[in-house]
Amino acid sequence: MTCIDLNSDIGESFGAYTMGMDEAVLEVITSANIACGWHAGDPMVMDKTVRAAAHCQVSVGAHPGYPDLMGFGRRSLNCSPREVRNYVIYQVGALRAFCRASGIGLAHVKPHGALYNTAVADPELSRILMEAVAAVDPSLYYVALAGAGAAEIQHQADTVGIRVMFEAFPDRTYTPEGRLTPRNQPNAVIHDPDQAARRALQMAKDGSVTASDGTIIALSAQTLCVHGDNPRALALVKTIRNTLTAAGITLQAMGQA
Amino acid sequence: MTCIDLNSDIGESFGAYTMGMDEAVLEVITSANIACGWHAGDPMVMDKTVRAAAHCQVSVGAHPGYPDLMGFGRRSLNCSPREVRNYVIYQVGALRAFCRASGIGLAHVKPHGALYNTAVADPELSRILMEAVAAVDPSLYYVALAGAGAAEIQHQADTVGIRVMFEAFPDRTYTPEGRLTPRNQPNAVIHDPDQAARRALQMAKDGSVTASDGTIIALSAQTLCVHGDNPRALALVKTIRNTLTAAGITLQAMGQA
Amino acid sequence: MTCIDLNSDIGESFGAYTMGMDEAVLEVITSANIACGWHAGDPMVMDKTVRAAAHCQVSVGAHPGYPDLMGFGRRSLNCSPREVRNYVIYQVGALRAFCRASGIGLAHVKPHGALYNTAVADPELSRILMEAVAAVDPSLYYVALAGAGAAEIQHQADTVGIRVMFEAFPDRTYTPEGRLTPRNQPNAVIHDPDQAARRALQMAKDGSVTASDGTIIALSAQTLCVHGDNPRALALVKTIRNTLTAAGITLQAMGQA
Amino acid sequence: MTCIDLNSDIGESFGAYTMGMDEAVLEVITSANIACGWHAGDPMVMDKTVRAAAHCQVSVGAHPGYPDLMGFGRRSLNCSPREVRNYVIYQVGALRAFCRASGIGLAHVKPHGALYNTAVADPELSRILMEAVAAVDPSLYYVALAGAGAAEIQHQADTVGIRVMFEAFPDRTYTPEGRLTPRNQPNAVIHDPDQAARRALQMAKDGSVTASDGTIIALSAQTLCVHGDNPRALALVKTIRNTLTAAGITLQAMGQA
Repeated sequence: MTCIDLNSDIGESFGAYTMGMDEAVLEVITSANIACGWHAGDPMVMDKTVRAAAHCQVSVGAHPGYPDLMGFGRRSLNCSPREVRNYVIYQVGALRAFCRASGIGLAHVKPHGALYNTAVADPELSRILMEAVAAVDPSLYYVALAGAGAAEIQHQADTVGIRVMFEAFPDRTYTPEGRLTPRNQPNAVIHDPDQAARRALQMAKDGSVTASDGTIIALSAQTLCVHGDNPRALALVKTIRNTLTAAGITLQAMGQA
Repeated sequence: MTCIDLNSDIGESFGAYTMGMDEAVLEVITSANIACGWHAGDPMVMDKTVRAAAHCQVSVGAHPGYPDLMGFGRRSLNCSPREVRNYVIYQVGALRAFCRASGIGLAHVKPHGALYNTAVADPELSRILMEAVAAVDPSLYYVALAGAGAAEIQHQADTVGIRVMFEAFPDRTYTPEGRLTPRNQPNAVIHDPDQAARRALQMAKDGSVTASDGTIIALSAQTLCVHGDNPRALALVKTIRNTLTAAGITLQAMGQA
Repeated sequence: MTCIDLNSDIGESFGAYTMGMDEAVLEVITSANIACGWHAGDPMVMDKTVRAAAHCQVSVGAHPGYPDLMGFGRRSLNCSPREVRNYVIYQVGALRAFCRASGIGLAHVKPHGALYNTAVADPELSRILMEAVAAVDPSLYYVALAGAGAAEIQHQADTVGIRVMFEAFPDRTYTPEGRLTPRNQPNAVIHDPDQAARRALQMAKDGSVTASDGTIIALSAQTLCVHGDNPRALALVKTIRNTLTAAGITLQAMGQA
Repeated sequence: MTCIDLNSDIGESFGAYTMGMDEAVLEVITSANIACGWHAGDPMVMDKTVRAAAHCQVSVGAHPGYPDLMGFGRRSLNCSPREVRNYVIYQVGALRAFCRASGIGLAHVKPHGALYNTAVADPELSRILMEAVAAVDPSLYYVALAGAGAAEIQHQADTVGIRVMFEAFPDRTYTPEGRLTPRNQPNAVIHDPDQAARRALQMAKDGSVTASDGTIIALSAQTLCVHGDNPRALALVKTIRNTLTAAGITLQAMGQA
């Protein structure tokens, strides 16, 4: 039986501000990355989102970011390794408490935005992030980018003693080296639902992706990242989901195989 | 054997700002109430303070407050009960994660500043605070003010299913009704170390306090709150500590009897 | 010629969060109350909103609030008078700088949310707010609630040396005493556009309002507060505007008569 | 008559946190760079500091920084040029309002910490900062680092239409190219008061500095940056001040010659 997880960032509302279509997204994903109040989210939103995820039997993960609500965590901040470690411990601990209050477990941690991108470019930071996650709870999964660099991440995870879930992006194109095409380049993002769904199927079934130059490269991913912040994005997720299930792929949260 | 706990608020530094004499205080107290980043403290300070407390074998508690760094959590904010609940869950969870990362347990929760004062005046809020603490971990102690109102707090704690530690203030005077003399009144605060130490001994040994009118009233407290933010305050704590130990009182963290 | 101003709160987006329909609102109002980054808004939003208002020839005012982004400034915070004064000076100064950068003048100041409500209930706080505004620029108008208490506000404004613009709410009902019916009571808010428009016309033309018991009371208002945060609200504003202009009322910003 | 200005960063306290020895510093400097609430300072501190500077007849400047209180503005944040512009307008406007409320003028703007350092390394950012300052008030001085790069800064200032004051650091060593020796290198900072004072005199009188390799290089500075955050630093400033005045140099705020 072939399994794949669909993960999405939710719980990004803040105070009087609403972002995303969390209720609809929770019906089509299997893992939720929930903001922890630093780049998005607040305790009211975290509480509501964790309970909604629990209700939908969606697996819950923490989505920590830089302390930058004004920039939505998308701007890199020149922190020391120790600062990053402690910022992640803080945020993971806060979300974990809401999981406990809702009677569910916290399953994974996925860094957000600029923190995620910095970690992709800096294996040393990835190790620090994994150590921070393991320090709170070594049974948590750490979500990292599949493709180029995955072997090094896996090696570090083995050293740290934490399990990694590699994620791929069905709506993004890849370079022949297995890297995401930078967003400032044309064709970095795939908007056609059918094309994204075909790529998701290829990722889930064949463990490969067709790079932007046409070559097929191996890409081992246990989870696919999808977005649901607007109706069109949500429609794309649904097409992915339907294509996967029609092909006999089981949609299942990370670590529940 | 008579036991008493000495608790103090520490970990109140923030970023480049230093507050308090935490290292010295940790040598004379048995329980530390550590700020959680909302009214004071930040993840770097929390990490450092938890590790220092662990090193000194001082029991660690969370000290959550209102989201008001600029006002140091001393100004009441008109929050809904649900907001208060979620703010406490968030902060307790964050501090608990640092305890886990340091390999120690979180022992108690004591609300800070305006949140504490509002809870003293509003038993309904006290219940909400206790429910929040219990939602994260029902084995945590909740620290509440001894004296007037203690019976109602104990009743609510029994309903919620959480253990309470009542605290008294050896450097504060009490009304005949068992309430703290408001700070804006003269003689609300006792500055003489010997007088404070005598009162601490009376609280620990006799379970009573001499009110401002001279009457002796019962006051059941398992922990005494002391302050160490300046050299004079620290000297007062040392006098209290020496007086208690000289009288054969065992100084011991809450719940470790 | 009878004139009236239509004012509305805009510029309440923050970072990646969008709130309100500012572009559409700017086409139907004559004065904009722009958030200053404490309860809503940020420098990018302030810059964009001030320029948009300038483009639409809408008069610009500052809309300062409590330091409570998470609560959108709707929760009262127990500040000292000096704190309130300085918070208002800070925010008004910040918005005024964006007006200067856009080559327009700042015209008025209207407190937001809980700060506004506290000022309505506390004439002493109103005076402090007026003093703060006058300290930055004594030519600014201060917007206060028309009806009960207006005489006292006017008296204080005369003492402070600042001009007041009184505002009325066409979509709110009034008590016979000239107070807004509290929002937690039924019929506090009027949702029918025609009814709101008739009341707006009565306010502008007759200087009166029909209270909830049917009595007609005098209500001297130079500006009417309208809302545009959703399509229905915007339609209501358009109905008010059309009704006023059809009746020969000139819509004009405060102080430009 | 030879004149020089002594500038120092003050007003860096926040809420219950005290930093620096502002009262003592104000007695020995001629220009104060006052924090604006983003990396340090708050409205209460700004109000108090502006009034204290006015009382001491010290010229007041704004000291804007990145939105990073936790990092004290010392960590670079990857902002867009437009974000930097608007952050500076916001902060300068806020401080300017306190000057108006105290009946004094705002004289200059000096970027803080990581924002200052980024500007030194990035002339394009310097231009944006100058444009932001000029947008609020073109009569303000912009404080920039003397030495390498000064010619380009001056050229840009001429284009923007703003006046620059170049500053030098008597307690820092310089490379033969006219750059500050990076702080992570040994001997970057001069701790000996007499040596710092001799260098200050050379800067003020000769318009030169002796670089770390012994060569004397031209360095045109109108203001010298000094620090007063601890007693030793304050003593160093006093030595500088005494040495300068004993040599007949007039200590005078920027632009008041």
